[in-house]
Amino acid sequence: MDCILSPEKTKLIVQMFPYKTSLFIDRSCAQPLYVQLSNQLIQLIKDQKLPPNTKLPGTRTLSDILQVHRKTVVACYEELLLQGWVESIPKKGTFVNSCLPDVTPQDYVEEKVAIDSIQGFSFYTNQFLNRKTNELLEGVLYVNDGISDTRLTPVNEIARTYRRIASRKSIFEHLSYGSTYGNEKLREVLANYLNTTRGLHISKENILITRGSQNGIYLSSQLLLRKGDVVVVGNTNYISADITFLNAKATIKRIDVDECGLVMDDLEELCKKHTVKAVYVTSHHHHPTTVTMSAERRIHLLNLAKRFGFAILEDDYDYDFNYNHAPILPLASHDTNGNVIYIGSVCKTVAPVFRIGYLIANTSFIEEAANLRRIVDRQGDALLELTFADFIQSGDLDSHIRKVLKIYKTRRDLFCDLLSKKLSKYVEFEIPKGGMAVWVHLKEPYKWTAVAEVAKKYKLDIGEYERYDTANTNHNCIRMGFASCNENEIKEFIARLALTMKHLEKGA
Amino acid sequence: MDCILSPEKTKLIVQMFPYKTSLFIDRSCAQPLYVQLSNQLIQLIKDQKLPPNTKLPGTRTLSDILQVHRKTVVACYEELLLQGWVESIPKKGTFVNSCLPDVTPQDYVEEKVAIDSIQGFSFYTNQFLNRKTNELLEGVLYVNDGISDTRLTPVNEIARTYRRIASRKSIFEHLSYGSTYGNEKLREVLANYLNTTRGLHISKENILITRGSQNGIYLSSQLLLRKGDVVVVGNTNYISADITFLNAKATIKRIDVDECGLVMDDLEELCKKHTVKAVYVTSHHHHPTTVTMSAERRIHLLNLAKRFGFAILEDDYDYDFNYNHAPILPLASHDTNGNVIYIGSVCKTVAPVFRIGYLIANTSFIEEAANLRRIVDRQGDALLELTFADFIQSGDLDSHIRKVLKIYKTRRDLFCDLLSKKLSKYVEFEIPKGGMAVWVHLKEPYKWTAVAEVAKKYKLDIGEYERYDTANTNHNCIRMGFASCNENEIKEFIARLALTMKHLEKGA
Repeated sequence: MDCILSPEKTKLIVQMFPYKTSLFIDRSCAQPLYVQLSNQLIQLIKDQKLPPNTKLPGTRTLSDILQVHRKTVVACYEELLLQGWVESIPKKGTFVNSCLPDVTPQDYVEEKVAIDSIQGFSFYTNQFLNRKTNELLEGVLYVNDGISDTRLTPVNEIARTYRRIASRKSIFEHLSYGSTYGNEKLREVLANYLNTTRGLHISKENILITRGSQNGIYLSSQLLLRKGDVVVVGNTNYISADITFLNAKATIKRIDVDECGLVMDDLEELCKKHTVKAVYVTSHHHHPTTVTMSAERRIHLLNLAKRFGFAILEDDYDYDFNYNHAPILPLASHDTNGNVIYIGSVCKTVAPVFRIGYLIANTSFIEEAANLRRIVDRQGDALLELTFADFIQSGDLDSHIRKVLKIYKTRRDLFCDLLSKKLSKYVEFEIPKGGMAVWVHLKEPYKWTAVAEVAKKYKLDIGEYERYDTANTNHNCIRMGFASCNENEIKEFIARLALTMKHLEKGA
Repeated sequence: MDCILSPEKTKLIVQMFPYKTSLFIDRSCAQPLYVQLSNQLIQLIKDQKLPPNTKLPGTRTLSDILQVHRKTVVACYEELLLQGWVESIPKKGTFVNSCLPDVTPQDYVEEKVAIDSIQGFSFYTNQFLNRKTNELLEGVLYVNDGISDTRLTPVNEIARTYRRIASRKSIFEHLSYGSTYGNEKLREVLANYLNTTRGLHISKENILITRGSQNGIYLSSQLLLRKGDVVVVGNTNYISADITFLNAKATIKRIDVDECGLVMDDLEELCKKHTVKAVYVTSHHHHPTTVTMSAERRIHLLNLAKRFGFAILEDDYDYDFNYNHAPILPLASHDTNGNVIYIGSVCKTVAPVFRIGYLIANTSFIEEAANLRRIVDRQGDALLELTFADFIQSGDLDSHIRKVLKIYKTRRDLFCDLLSKKLSKYVEFEIPKGGMAVWVHLKEPYKWTAVAEVAKKYKLDIGEYERYDTANTNHNCIRMGFASCNENEIKEFIARLALTMKHLEKGA
């Protein structure tokens, strides 16, 4: 024990301290008076304004000085005693504890310095994690990556269901610590839903409920990748996936992406040279270029995975949004060898605020992922998970998808039509078969970085070109999301972009 | 491109395939008929039951065979065409694509094997992550670590607030991608609340909203610790923290814990020998032994942190539950050098299902934590965060704490009283000043593992002793949570434990 109490004081410093001016009582404050007093006395003790062995005034004296009830001072001293800041010596009084370690007297100014400017310890930083965040400004239009229109989210219906579920008599069982796999009911409903809609052959044991797709990519990366392990991605790829793999210290190898998706002959060559641990694929549709992976490539990829024993990380973020035909079934539906880790969420489909996603794989992988998630965030939100089980089972999710699909198709058509009519001099693009964004190539001699600079004048925020060129190939393309904008916003957007380009053309 | 279309077939295999018996139409299924058909045909193609170049029957023929409308077959063939499984040769018909890569014919039985039993890729497993989970059985009483009684959770009030917030006209702004730091409003409310109740001096920039305390420990560990970095914990410590540090590949060093908390002289010695990166402390109250860290030790710890430049990871999970006096202010309130990372949540106080916690530190650390959280789970749940901003600001959180504090105090008193009256022959313990559990020492010659075995006969689940002895000191103590049990449950619990001990005594 490093704390020795000294019941008999050898030396008692009796100091006349300006209590009246040093202690402040705020009767309008919610904090009880005795707590206000004790906190201030503790501060004075720590600052050595009241050094060890200082005799504190008697309770009657202090209550007179401060004009508070004596009981308040008594409660304050009891508190200090309990916390060990002072000791009480019978018939002598209350003294600042003699065995408090030496506290270097603090300069009062230094002490007031906010914690902000100080960093008392070191930690690891990763430059690649550092990403700019836009502060949204009134009147400015922002080019986005392809996000849904939250004005169409049936948030009232979902909140009503949430409340209905919360008011069930048996709900308290779901309020305590729950399964790290996610709510059982939602896992059952999802297994059934995904088997029907996506041709999977899974049971609830193959599902971990995540906090959205990114959480699924993260958990998988942590289990699949260690320093130097090879993960293969497209030669331009979804930047968040890249960053997640880098954070796991993996080595990223890139293969070409053409109009049929990732080029499998390149992957086969790579597999012969390196031990590939995982291939990340947004089969439907490739992020950022929006192409759909062809059937032939899909089979080829599955065969390579089986042959070389790597995991296919299939991020099916865009499954629900196909305008020309029914969605193409995911790789996971054709996976007879257990190579596919299938990741999806309702975040794109319903709204990003509802952090409900799924990680689907063989049971031993799911088990390990559930163990890992226990230390990452312990568990999900069972109330929200039950809400979405209801939302899916009732058919409301499907109705919502049907509704927005029509709207987004109209927006895609309008956006592409205007882009073609007003800007074909400057840009070229393919009409995307699905998803929420167009992959727009800027013709020579224009550069997106320069466009972004001029666009600001027209209250248009193009965003960073770099996020779409993680492999530094200078393809001069960016994604332009159309789904989140209504008709007027799309018209306004195209008008501002046209003004920007004309401005640049004159200047060029 | 590795896909070469061959418009002119050199060889056309015309095979009479038993379509009638191989294709099943389920009219009761929600899936459109043409999708059912296409999925089955894709499977047949993949299995090489329909090999490349096979001519498919005409749409009229197949519709006759299957007794479906011809339009259904037309839609199905269009789908297969779009997905690239078949090609259409004018005036010749529809053929299985010639350039599908060789698919090794699958044994039908092997194919039906669930993904469960197959693991087509390798991944890293950590034995220490593997923890047993109890399946709760009817009629069994479970010893817990000290959890709240969710029957007291004001879940209806919270759900009502959630719905009210969701129905605001401006809510759609909060439904899209949001700040990785958490909702701004909750950060403001929390800064104010924690400054008032815990004597902190922070602004919202010092706060990251987490998914509960464990999430805060995880994020901090990932930023503070790399392979071999030293983290110091008590010689028995909260097992989840230990596991989280091990997962970060840190080296755990242990120091003694006595009735005043972590022994600082030991820490000082350790700091002289090793570079200590972080010290994990549950200052209030030590997990698992329930002792409160003394004021003297607190100052000593802060001074050592300043001198040796390590981070103090203060997990203040028990702050709200003190029965004898006002809560002791956290280390974070005395931290003038920015060494403390302060972690807390509403999970213990309100209910574990509400995954709202906070990580508080200097702004550069918080910024890096927010960058990391972007790839871990992107962001929090703004609707729930706004709900809790309201719950805290309205004073409802404080009322709830006052209400349950009284109830838990009564339960603690009853539990300790009965434990003392009925079981003092077998156990010894100190009445805890706060928290939700008693640290119960089993006297010789009894062992908790043996007790747990016998207790099962009396429908009492003691749980694992090992979780409380992470340092293998054989202290023969476990935590017994009392807060989650009402009066009758406590009586029943003690009765069953007494029966168990008598059984063992006779047997011994």
